Amino acid sequence: MTGKAARESAVEMAETVLPQDANTHGTAFGGKIVQWIDLCAGMVAGRHCRLPVVTVSMDDLHFHEPIKIGDFALLSGRLTAVFRSSMEISVRVMAENPLSGERRLCTSAYLTFVALSTDGRPVEVPPLVLETPEEQDAFERAKERRERRLQRASARRG
Amino acid sequence: MTGKAARESAVEMAETVLPQDANTHGTAFGGKIVQWIDLCAGMVAGRHCRLPVVTVSMDDLHFHEPIKIGDFALLSGRLTAVFRSSMEISVRVMAENPLSGERRLCTSAYLTFVALSTDGRPVEVPPLVLETPEEQDAFERAKERRERRLQRASARRG
Amino acid sequence: MTGKAARESAVEMAETVLPQDANTHGTAFGGKIVQWIDLCAGMVAGRHCRLPVVTVSMDDLHFHEPIKIGDFALLSGRLTAVFRSSMEISVRVMAENPLSGERRLCTSAYLTFVALSTDGRPVEVPPLVLETPEEQDAFERAKERRERRLQRASARRG
Amino acid sequence: MTGKAARESAVEMAETVLPQDANTHGTAFGGKIVQWIDLCAGMVAGRHCRLPVVTVSMDDLHFHEPIKIGDFALLSGRLTAVFRSSMEISVRVMAENPLSGERRLCTSAYLTFVALSTDGRPVEVPPLVLETPEEQDAFERAKERRERRLQRASARRG
Amino acid sequence: MTGKAARESAVEMAETVLPQDANTHGTAFGGKIVQWIDLCAGMVAGRHCRLPVVTVSMDDLHFHEPIKIGDFALLSGRLTAVFRSSMEISVRVMAENPLSGERRLCTSAYLTFVALSTDGRPVEVPPLVLETPEEQDAFERAKERRERRLQRASARRG
Amino acid sequence: MTGKAARESAVEMAETVLPQDANTHGTAFGGKIVQWIDLCAGMVAGRHCRLPVVTVSMDDLHFHEPIKIGDFALLSGRLTAVFRSSMEISVRVMAENPLSGERRLCTSAYLTFVALSTDGRPVEVPPLVLETPEEQDAFERAKERRERRLQRASARRG
Repeated sequence: MTGKAARESAVEMAETVLPQDANTHGTAFGGKIVQWIDLCAGMVAGRHCRLPVVTVSMDDLHFHEPIKIGDFALLSGRLTAVFRSSMEISVRVMAENPLSGERRLCTSAYLTFVALSTDGRPVEVPPLVLETPEEQDAFERAKERRERRLQRASARRG
Repeated sequence: MTGKAARESAVEMAETVLPQDANTHGTAFGGKIVQWIDLCAGMVAGRHCRLPVVTVSMDDLHFHEPIKIGDFALLSGRLTAVFRSSMEISVRVMAENPLSGERRLCTSAYLTFVALSTDGRPVEVPPLVLETPEEQDAFERAKERRERRLQRASARRG
Repeated sequence: MTGKAARESAVEMAETVLPQDANTHGTAFGGKIVQWIDLCAGMVAGRHCRLPVVTVSMDDLHFHEPIKIGDFALLSGRLTAVFRSSMEISVRVMAENPLSGERRLCTSAYLTFVALSTDGRPVEVPPLVLETPEEQDAFERAKERRERRLQRASARRG
Repeated sequence: MTGKAARESAVEMAETVLPQDANTHGTAFGGKIVQWIDLCAGMVAGRHCRLPVVTVSMDDLHFHEPIKIGDFALLSGRLTAVFRSSMEISVRVMAENPLSGERRLCTSAYLTFVALSTDGRPVEVPPLVLETPEEQDAFERAKERRERRLQRASARRG
Repeated sequence: MTGKAARESAVEMAETVLPQDANTHGTAFGGKIVQWIDLCAGMVAGRHCRLPVVTVSMDDLHFHEPIKIGDFALLSGRLTAVFRSSMEISVRVMAENPLSGERRLCTSAYLTFVALSTDGRPVEVPPLVLETPEEQDAFERAKERRERRLQRASARRG
Repeated sequence: MTGKAARESAVEMAETVLPQDANTHGTAFGGKIVQWIDLCAGMVAGRHCRLPVVTVSMDDLHFHEPIKIGDFALLSGRLTAVFRSSMEISVRVMAENPLSGERRLCTSAYLTFVALSTDGRPVEVPPLVLETPEEQDAFERAKERRERRLQRASARRG
């Protein structure tokens, strides 16, 4: 199977945070931000393998700062690693102040997706071709996260 | 006031068309697509002037082809003209088939926004610096659309 | 095919503008108003031809004045012209202040719909029987808008 | 306080039942229909008294028949009685099949609203002027429903 | 058919009232509360009979007090009576102040559901086994409500 | 500050998965499930400290199995650990088949919340009183997760 580079599946999303996205503090509701993150990562995974995909897990989801109502939320999703049938995607959410143009990192997360065959079983996806030292580095850290996930999963099972 | 180029305010949005966005034909509901178009254009206008903005009108909104549930909707908004306090923005919506990667133009529209001062009155915005022959051309056609809008508005008034 | 009068397909809609319909200015979000307009026009078109219909285009969509949260939005849709398989519908949105009863025109638009056969192709719809001088007048202006649409479409194609 | 007739506050609403309004049987979700009924009755109450109003109770809410996805839901709200600060409103929901035009009664309900002063206390509203024998009859039945409500409320209290 | 006790189908729901659930008074929109009540009662009915169920009617729906944005809404649904193919469910909605923990009854209602066979006809459901004097009492009052519903239905028919 | 036991802040939520909650595979959309999880955990955190709270991070969010449209989603949130101003909450989502009553674990996650003072700064919350060996065990694992979070945060900073 021919490999694909991360830039081929990268996704940029832009949303305006509306009053109906607010939590009771008047900032963007965490559940709504995660919804956007899930959709962004799903598009990255879908573009990489061109198969139906489902979310398997989310890790290291951090709400660094709140996003204000009226801000633009800019999501950027990028494949960090492929392990046979699973893909890890990094999503970063920046908030842009519409009046000043200033941007700050508000939320970040790693999501794992698997590709499904027509009978609903995980299938192999194209390998990821690492093109830059940053991508190589991101891949190493993705491998560590995966180790931890597998360790914890085996700990849960007994 | 210093001018700004169209590339400085351009916006790319990506959405996944979900079952809750469907009309009764099983394709994306027109009202939902226009909602995305309005938000996309509002971000372009906001980035150009860094002031609160409101939609004044929409023109030439065409649904060339339906967008299927599960497709990715890719919106691209770009400033075409600035007339003192009003800005015309072109938004084009492509649908990307997630399995084949094939893209086709589905919806296009021109929207006019005005910038508002704190007391709610239209205020002057930075002029648009045209950088390419395509932008020059788009500006000419925007002027024609504006002529027609003004003619029709004066016809409506009597 | 027997013709039908505009009054036979006219639609009146009433909505209360709720906080979840707000934009960041605390008035009704343009995208939401257009969604109501699209549904209103779709009901008019569906009633005229009693066939599945889809939105083809929107023209001259003007936001004359904002609608406040808590106001009643009153939509009134009326067929202005029929051209073989396409129908043009005028929708006007009045805002009613619930405390004073005062009404003002806030949004207006013209929408074009086509009727679809079961295999998804445009089909002929009943002609429109014009009954009043106002309807005759509205039809003449609809013909002009259609001319312009066809001209612009042919300009776009080359 | 000058009385007002029921026709002065009557409300007609029209909605298209979309896939996102569906329950798991593929018909309109009861909770959604009640939401429309509540808004329709709230507009009637608001128009009668031109004051802020709140729902106090719903009675005899019957789902006679399901409404199909794609049908038009036509709501008709009408004041049946006024008792000092409370107003009873009858709402009837007809479903219109968009292809045949056939209509059938699907849901009906009686709602009681009170008008609130600026400090949140119930205030007196204009009396209802009964104009027809049907309205007189509807008022008599509203009085019976109110008797039963008061009886049940006093039974609940002890 | 073996009977089942009310405790076997009881449902507890908890919701946080978000800004998008607000009416124009800044408290929870009645239509939204009824939506939660309908879902809560539907789960009770579904658990009792383990068949598809639909709402037939709502009675004595009272909004005793408003629920504030930010409050927790705690719904508690319990079967009060079974009449061959219909089930009456009582739903009570308490609001919990998240800062003080104080709870107060805000909304209450009785809903009637029927169970449907695969061809859409009402089918018999398991009888309700009454286990406590309170349940016996609730059942007696449910019978009275049913009497009144049948009387009013026969009054409507002729 | 007096400690509180985990059972004092435990939350049970029940939701019916509706068609509007579906992803393009016809099962519950991951973003929607996370929204429910975030609300459930927020109620647990709010009940423990009786202060405004915000989500700081989510960890080990696993989608073990899809939830079908029509299933009941049963969420159960429980405090696992308190660290001065932060609280870790475990949320487990079971899907209940409404026809068979069968339940299976579908999603699980750990969320960290902080309590905020009126000026928006993190404040100390009541300690958690561990009452059972299972709670002691859950607390030990929460401490390990926290160690890893702090390690990764310090790795991110350099």
